[in-house]
Amino acid sequence: MKYYYNYKEFISDTRELTEKIDWEFDVIIGIARGGLTLSHILGEYYNIRAVYSLNTIGYDDTKKLDNTEIFSIPNIENSLNVLIVDDIVDSGDTLKLVLDTLSAKYPTCTFKSASIFYKKDAIVQPNWSIREAKEWIDFFWSIDCPKID
Amino acid sequence: MKYYYNYKEFISDTRELTEKIDWEFDVIIGIARGGLTLSHILGEYYNIRAVYSLNTIGYDDTKKLDNTEIFSIPNIENSLNVLIVDDIVDSGDTLKLVLDTLSAKYPTCTFKSASIFYKKDAIVQPNWSIREAKEWIDFFWSIDCPKID
Repeated sequence: MKYYYNYKEFISDTRELTEKIDWEFDVIIGIARGGLTLSHILGEYYNIRAVYSLNTIGYDDTKKLDNTEIFSIPNIENSLNVLIVDDIVDSGDTLKLVLDTLSAKYPTCTFKSASIFYKKDAIVQPNWSIREAKEWIDFFWSIDCPKID
Repeated sequence: MKYYYNYKEFISDTRELTEKIDWEFDVIIGIARGGLTLSHILGEYYNIRAVYSLNTIGYDDTKKLDNTEIFSIPNIENSLNVLIVDDIVDSGDTLKLVLDTLSAKYPTCTFKSASIFYKKDAIVQPNWSIREAKEWIDFFWSIDCPKID
């Protein structure tokens, strides 16, 4: 079972997300790749130029690897409140690792998180989220510009 | 004069961009914020997980500042070929600064660049580009999720 999640739904959900987020923040960090487009549009919405990304390795296609690694951590030492965004909080492993790593590295920052999709059994939930993922999500950014071999 | 550039055009142009890019690369760097969505979709297209971003300060709304600063440079020391992407190469100041800075910091990497829009009188042109910008572009990511005060 796959659900094709299109651009129009994304815009509608992102609007809803901004209505839910009752917090002021000065930095947005998108978890690459999935969180990049959301971080972009939220940066525009909130007029925040400090939109950074960080990268994790944890999935190899649909197969979960044992070790998730985080790299390319942005320098946010002068920041106060940091919103971490991703397209989906699936197992929650990635979000937990990102929150733990950033909190340890930047103990004076406050971190909160937002995603479009969440899964009920994730080990950590985002502070704000819109849709429960009940099946595999095919995001428009993976689908709309397909590679033709 | 403003031109509203919508998502559908972006997908069509991104496909065309991938047809033009006759080069293999192992890293994509999106110039934030404008290049973030393009870097995301190209990362998906090429199945490259090493999608990084970097940030510049150079514009204050529509007013050009004298000093453009680049910060949050990703660590790409083990990379070979790096594609730098942005939504638009306007004056070319930003792209030139990014290319100069990255080339100085990572002399063993090869850098090429791609953008959707270019301006004819830019001081540096991207290697691959699709549309000439003849007026102000209102990108969909700035427009489709507007802030209602």
